[in-house]
Amino acid sequence: MNYNKLFSKLYGAVGDADELGQVASYIPELANINPNKFGVHLTTLNDNNYRYGDSDEKFSVQSIAKVLALVLAYKLEDEKLWDRVGVEPSGTPFNSLVQLEYDKGIPRNPLINAGALVISDILVSYFDEPKKQFIEFVRKVSGIPEIDFSARIADSEKSVGYTNAALVNLMKSFGNIRNNVDTVLDFYFNLCSIEMTCKELSRTFLFLADYGVCPYSNERIISISKSKRINAIMQLCGFYDEAGEFSFKVGLPGKSGVGGGIIAIHPNKYSIAVWSPRLNKKGNSIRGMKFLELFTTETKASIF
Amino acid sequence: MNYNKLFSKLYGAVGDADELGQVASYIPELANINPNKFGVHLTTLNDNNYRYGDSDEKFSVQSIAKVLALVLAYKLEDEKLWDRVGVEPSGTPFNSLVQLEYDKGIPRNPLINAGALVISDILVSYFDEPKKQFIEFVRKVSGIPEIDFSARIADSEKSVGYTNAALVNLMKSFGNIRNNVDTVLDFYFNLCSIEMTCKELSRTFLFLADYGVCPYSNERIISISKSKRINAIMQLCGFYDEAGEFSFKVGLPGKSGVGGGIIAIHPNKYSIAVWSPRLNKKGNSIRGMKFLELFTTETKASIF
Amino acid sequence: MNYNKLFSKLYGAVGDADELGQVASYIPELANINPNKFGVHLTTLNDNNYRYGDSDEKFSVQSIAKVLALVLAYKLEDEKLWDRVGVEPSGTPFNSLVQLEYDKGIPRNPLINAGALVISDILVSYFDEPKKQFIEFVRKVSGIPEIDFSARIADSEKSVGYTNAALVNLMKSFGNIRNNVDTVLDFYFNLCSIEMTCKELSRTFLFLADYGVCPYSNERIISISKSKRINAIMQLCGFYDEAGEFSFKVGLPGKSGVGGGIIAIHPNKYSIAVWSPRLNKKGNSIRGMKFLELFTTETKASIF
Amino acid sequence: MNYNKLFSKLYGAVGDADELGQVASYIPELANINPNKFGVHLTTLNDNNYRYGDSDEKFSVQSIAKVLALVLAYKLEDEKLWDRVGVEPSGTPFNSLVQLEYDKGIPRNPLINAGALVISDILVSYFDEPKKQFIEFVRKVSGIPEIDFSARIADSEKSVGYTNAALVNLMKSFGNIRNNVDTVLDFYFNLCSIEMTCKELSRTFLFLADYGVCPYSNERIISISKSKRINAIMQLCGFYDEAGEFSFKVGLPGKSGVGGGIIAIHPNKYSIAVWSPRLNKKGNSIRGMKFLELFTTETKASIF
Repeated sequence: MNYNKLFSKLYGAVGDADELGQVASYIPELANINPNKFGVHLTTLNDNNYRYGDSDEKFSVQSIAKVLALVLAYKLEDEKLWDRVGVEPSGTPFNSLVQLEYDKGIPRNPLINAGALVISDILVSYFDEPKKQFIEFVRKVSGIPEIDFSARIADSEKSVGYTNAALVNLMKSFGNIRNNVDTVLDFYFNLCSIEMTCKELSRTFLFLADYGVCPYSNERIISISKSKRINAIMQLCGFYDEAGEFSFKVGLPGKSGVGGGIIAIHPNKYSIAVWSPRLNKKGNSIRGMKFLELFTTETKASIF
Repeated sequence: MNYNKLFSKLYGAVGDADELGQVASYIPELANINPNKFGVHLTTLNDNNYRYGDSDEKFSVQSIAKVLALVLAYKLEDEKLWDRVGVEPSGTPFNSLVQLEYDKGIPRNPLINAGALVISDILVSYFDEPKKQFIEFVRKVSGIPEIDFSARIADSEKSVGYTNAALVNLMKSFGNIRNNVDTVLDFYFNLCSIEMTCKELSRTFLFLADYGVCPYSNERIISISKSKRINAIMQLCGFYDEAGEFSFKVGLPGKSGVGGGIIAIHPNKYSIAVWSPRLNKKGNSIRGMKFLELFTTETKASIF
Repeated sequence: MNYNKLFSKLYGAVGDADELGQVASYIPELANINPNKFGVHLTTLNDNNYRYGDSDEKFSVQSIAKVLALVLAYKLEDEKLWDRVGVEPSGTPFNSLVQLEYDKGIPRNPLINAGALVISDILVSYFDEPKKQFIEFVRKVSGIPEIDFSARIADSEKSVGYTNAALVNLMKSFGNIRNNVDTVLDFYFNLCSIEMTCKELSRTFLFLADYGVCPYSNERIISISKSKRINAIMQLCGFYDEAGEFSFKVGLPGKSGVGGGIIAIHPNKYSIAVWSPRLNKKGNSIRGMKFLELFTTETKASIF
Repeated sequence: MNYNKLFSKLYGAVGDADELGQVASYIPELANINPNKFGVHLTTLNDNNYRYGDSDEKFSVQSIAKVLALVLAYKLEDEKLWDRVGVEPSGTPFNSLVQLEYDKGIPRNPLINAGALVISDILVSYFDEPKKQFIEFVRKVSGIPEIDFSARIADSEKSVGYTNAALVNLMKSFGNIRNNVDTVLDFYFNLCSIEMTCKELSRTFLFLADYGVCPYSNERIISISKSKRINAIMQLCGFYDEAGEFSFKVGLPGKSGVGGGIIAIHPNKYSIAVWSPRLNKKGNSIRGMKFLELFTTETKASIF
């Protein structure tokens, strides 16, 4: 099926959402984005590519990169990873300390900020040059050697990152952070600063549609079981406290970022990346979610 | 594939879990069950049936019936149903009032007790003889005219049902219960008292594997979209605060009950019912969950 | 010192607050009160009496009566009372179920609704005719045989008392209510329906300024130690989640009710009752609190 | 009245509590204290002094010093102080982030850690040399020029102070911390490191029994109204989530520290300092609380 025409039609259908929502504004680097940008790129397992709009423009993937950090940490640590982070939906807003305090420093899942900080701590422990070695992993998975951190974004986040500093210190007080808090925060802010286009994002995540094998290199990144489990975590925890809404309406595992990006996976079929910077109150892209809802409804593509 | 041999093998593999866990004991009627019972029944869309153990013995399906009440209420109310109940995982234990008070009487989802009480209220409003008309719906969906409430179980639950009385009164104080609280509780306790065998349970839920069509009668119960959405809700909310664990390890939408039953759906393929009364601390069947984990691992059957 | 002139002056000073605040409206019987009513009555240990405004008009004392129920239960149960109810401020709004669920059915203190329901349960257990015997106790303490429940108010509260029904059922589920929930609620709603004038209220509570002795009859109602402890509980818990504010600004132990009444005690000196029906968002009388703040500031009368 | 003999007798009566409780162990400097130390010192307004036990031995006053920081900040900021910190009991354990997140970065009161961090921030903003100028204030109030910080204790706290770092970062994220977080933490850890003997502690706090006037110098430290209000805050918030228990049993405004010290004030009469390092689970001195309970019971000295 050629999706290009469908993308164009669906873009028209979501247009009304233009006026709604705000671009993330807590750092100037994100606030300066043109709020009306919209791009989508879908890559199938046999490398058919479909696209619409600003799909070749770089944007800050933000929390979407947490999935890649999780993949690497899970690969390295196996099941003992789950001693330090849970797999349950958080049920509370994305930067909440309440649950963390109640659960004695164990984050509910690896895709909320607290969980991604624990994952960052694990990677910092594991590597000599964590940032360098992590970005090399991302390049390998994607087959795109140009993917990189944005020092500008990372610095900007660091200058206002008090909530994340609170989280990492709280977890350190419970013994669930092993490294220096500033080192962990530096890794974390860089992780969230990665920039990709919709095309790059779609291609990077295709291995999760292929049960853990990178379709470009035919290299296995992670086992079938781990690949499925990461998709399960995205399904339940990928959209902050709107995971139910996304599952209900879109029906694919996915992950959003406050840069306005969303990646969604159809196991054994394709990965699809959407980007539109206006966010709803939960921090998810309004047009991105709506577009994916229409897309899976139209194509009857939900996994359920 | 003939699953009978696999069932037998997997039953051996979960045997170690025998010693662990307690039968639900808050009502005598549940506490009296032989804790070592174990049954499983799988029904495929083309009506192949596979079974093991005590799969033809009746047990109390308890919260599993909440899914059937949801199906009927969703069918009757369409999307306006979601004004009165959410679709997000609860993130807290299954009978918690905290979230409910915080959210002004709107339950997080229709599969926690509070949500099922709102669904009960809706059905009570809709029907002249709610209990009678509901059980007729269940019989139609399952094609099994003998399915019935257990007055014994319902009475027993009613005699100790103070937490549910607290929930329904709290929601009434927020205006989210329209009928007399005792009428709603009576419907709810009857709903949870339904008894089925694994075979009956598996057959009753098969329409959710068939995108809303009852495979015995070829009658459409609910629309494709609604069928998928109910599966999505089960995936995110079907196991109290262990939904993530079940998604992660089993990877199928499902629902558990404190009677020790679990139903799981593989869309477009089959439904599978397991029963084993010993529960873990979260209220889910220990051997049931383990069995399903081994089954989907062995058959690579997760939807992810 | 003759306070009559001071009362008149201070009434002028609080007049600006007239426009603010709402009369309690959750039951029609309370909503019908003239919001501009204002009365105050102070009784000293040697029976000097000072008054201003509508001090001889009956109003619904509501939660203020919880103190009298506590006095009687403490007298009957001694220190074993504290196995079933705490003495700590609640830190959350007055009808919150959160704390109660967290603390397994043990209310934080006897002056929040949950605590007063446990006290009601205790009195119901103790007496053959709980309502009759309780009102006789109040009449004895006050020396005023006409004091009575208002059946009209009690019935009105009962008709909308779902939050209290939720509380009592929740505590029953934890085993901290021994009697039938309807019996306990009936006692509780009657307790809160007692009507007094400012003069009667002031005289009724004078024994707590006299270390437990009723100054009219010279009869000891409770021991010195218990009398001081009840004052301490009022100081910390008497104003829902505004107890700190009242202690900070007024500096006397006291208790408010949503009827707009406030009683305050100056140990070894006097008791003072104020009534003004407009409430702030925390459920306390706006002009009543302001009047008492000005009064203790002017007379340097705080216990601190 | 000569209290020396009574102190000796009451010490005997609390002796049984010896075995119970643990010395604070989160920093080695506190863990090394002899757990069986016990001292008490009472100073009356007309400078009568009564003592028992190890009352001339220095110990770490810890959180007790928060009251002195509050006095200074209140003096400097007047009522606008309360825009940044509340006066309500916390209702939750002493280092909880839950309440703080719920209340958008405004601590419930100035005596919990979060509140004292805001007070620290205010003093850091106000002074050129905050630590120097604060300790000079303490020396002036006490009339004891030798009182000082313990660099050893402050450094030790800093090395494990992740919970406080979490608190200050969280409040910074809400805009309620104006200075660099490390500067604020440095001031805070020094504040808590002050060492005094029981005698020094009793004499330092005597101005709060004298309505704000330092009885040694006859200098007014703060106004009558502010002095009373600080006593009210101690009464409601001085013992973490055991403030009710202390008010109920002891009936005096006071403040405890995890070093095992307690200060209590009898307005217009005396101040009394007790020290005994074994703590209960709430972080308050077991023998200290018991001793004060027996003392106020025996002398009928509660303010209620």
